[in-house]
Amino acid sequence: MSSRDGHGTRVAVFGAGSWGTTFAKVLADAGCAVALHARRPELAEAITRTRENADYLPGIRLPDGLRATTDPAEALDEAEIVVLAVPSQSLRDNLTAWAPLLPPESVLLSLMKGIELGSTKRMSQVICEITGAGADRVAALSGPNLAREIAEEQPAATVIACTDQRRAAQVQAACHTPYFRPYTNGDLVGCELGGAVKNVIALACGITEGMGFGDNTRASLITRGLAETARLGAALGAELSTFAGLAGLGDLVATCSSPLSRNRTFGEKLGRGMTVEEVQQTTRQVAEGVKSCRPVLDLASAHGVDMPLTEAVVRVCHEGVPAAQMVKEIMSREAKPE
Amino acid sequence: MSSRDGHGTRVAVFGAGSWGTTFAKVLADAGCAVALHARRPELAEAITRTRENADYLPGIRLPDGLRATTDPAEALDEAEIVVLAVPSQSLRDNLTAWAPLLPPESVLLSLMKGIELGSTKRMSQVICEITGAGADRVAALSGPNLAREIAEEQPAATVIACTDQRRAAQVQAACHTPYFRPYTNGDLVGCELGGAVKNVIALACGITEGMGFGDNTRASLITRGLAETARLGAALGAELSTFAGLAGLGDLVATCSSPLSRNRTFGEKLGRGMTVEEVQQTTRQVAEGVKSCRPVLDLASAHGVDMPLTEAVVRVCHEGVPAAQMVKEIMSREAKPE
Repeated sequence: MSSRDGHGTRVAVFGAGSWGTTFAKVLADAGCAVALHARRPELAEAITRTRENADYLPGIRLPDGLRATTDPAEALDEAEIVVLAVPSQSLRDNLTAWAPLLPPESVLLSLMKGIELGSTKRMSQVICEITGAGADRVAALSGPNLAREIAEEQPAATVIACTDQRRAAQVQAACHTPYFRPYTNGDLVGCELGGAVKNVIALACGITEGMGFGDNTRASLITRGLAETARLGAALGAELSTFAGLAGLGDLVATCSSPLSRNRTFGEKLGRGMTVEEVQQTTRQVAEGVKSCRPVLDLASAHGVDMPLTEAVVRVCHEGVPAAQMVKEIMSREAKPE
Repeated sequence: MSSRDGHGTRVAVFGAGSWGTTFAKVLADAGCAVALHARRPELAEAITRTRENADYLPGIRLPDGLRATTDPAEALDEAEIVVLAVPSQSLRDNLTAWAPLLPPESVLLSLMKGIELGSTKRMSQVICEITGAGADRVAALSGPNLAREIAEEQPAATVIACTDQRRAAQVQAACHTPYFRPYTNGDLVGCELGGAVKNVIALACGITEGMGFGDNTRASLITRGLAETARLGAALGAELSTFAGLAGLGDLVATCSSPLSRNRTFGEKLGRGMTVEEVQQTTRQVAEGVKSCRPVLDLASAHGVDMPLTEAVVRVCHEGVPAAQMVKEIMSREAKPE
């Protein structure tokens, strides 16, 4: 399935994990000329040879408009849009190496959903800092977008947030296909926060699920989790309506419900009694929420915002508190008066 | 598990389906003296004899503080709280018969989630009309409350809405147990609308699920569904914050996610190609959304509110439009610009 809204737009995608690869497919299906940058030569070579990313997206045939490379300079050659889909905590180092190669007018699009450790910066802030780009050159994409379902061309919608409407529209055109509908939004801060905090809430949902709690509990956690996300957003100048939309509620519900969600699955194993280290050994992919929960909490503390669910996840993931012990506390706090 | 917040409060519960029976158990666990009214003598007799409602809640032992009866006068004798948990569309007829027996000062609590066909009245409005009670005597209970999970004493929270704070607190005390946490809210209209429309949205989720769509689609439908519910609420004077809370988002997410939800399950069968009549023959329990979708849409039309998802469900359930045909329309409308 393809359309031609992208009509030859040159795009570089950094990060050949499941979401980076899926989004590269979307772009190619929309008519873009896509270079997918993979760190490991054997992965780039396998993608080129087999038209499949068997490590992260087995069974999905990648379109012809997509080529893989390990050479950042080749990937970035004349790129109009540069998509960043690397693990959040590795962005700073990676981008420092790539920055001198970035075409000066390229739009920098973040697919990443995290907050940087230590600096508590959002991904777009890290991008601006490293590249010297103005905030209007940076966009973020977020929504209920489980990679596997989109790779299978199930219909999905997403939000492209950029303070510059023209650039938002440029990205929108580049990734619009019959199965993928992008909508634009000017609220970059809200979209990035929705994406970062939902991974933390998905961990909490997974933990309670692993302990045997059902859909009432998950629904309560989603409700309270969105409320604490919106409180943080309000403190940071985001629009509250963003949290009621696809990049807030939509993304949160998809991530907290799906067996495909890494963060939820990670939490489920914690809830069954495994330690963080034990779970990490069983999984190839990164659970962003494990790393982001502390900087999210630091950001909240710095702005005087109360985030009890995030705090509970931090205690389980980083302070050695057993999940079982935390759940009692979560359950007694999850439903403050309306 | 029980506490004594209800300490002997006399409560009559009308409707021995799964939710009525579960809530009767909650009340008895909280210390109330509960009479559960069942229409069918064999069910009342079986509950009394076996302490189980094998038809609707198999495997759950009902507490001693709960007795079953088919005699409304006996159930209502000195009742301080009267709980109504009958199918929405049968409330008017049932309540007309019971009204002369209602103790004049009793609080009338609706567990029902529907809008009356024809009149497009909320359940509390029907109660006021039939009984002549003032609006301040009527309350509604709503939240992420899948009956089976609560019957198993999994922790859950709920909202008790009443314009009279004192009566809301009275009901709150009567049903507060270690596994069931009620919070009060003054927004009766918002709580009732959240409950009524979520059944319609759950049908839509079930339909797409039955057709093979995944969590991205469901998350988008939940997001758009809550938005159209809130639009209707705004037109009817509800508080928008109610829809972001347990009786709005919370209830919607639980119902749309759970395999225990009758409305979602009903929709799933429609999505697999069965007709409404065929599905109705396979199920003992009522899918409220099938009946409520049209009066919800009528109410929206009367107030000039656009509810595209509700409209799609009406067309499938009542206008013979095949689910497959509607889904294309749903998918192309489900994500209007943010």
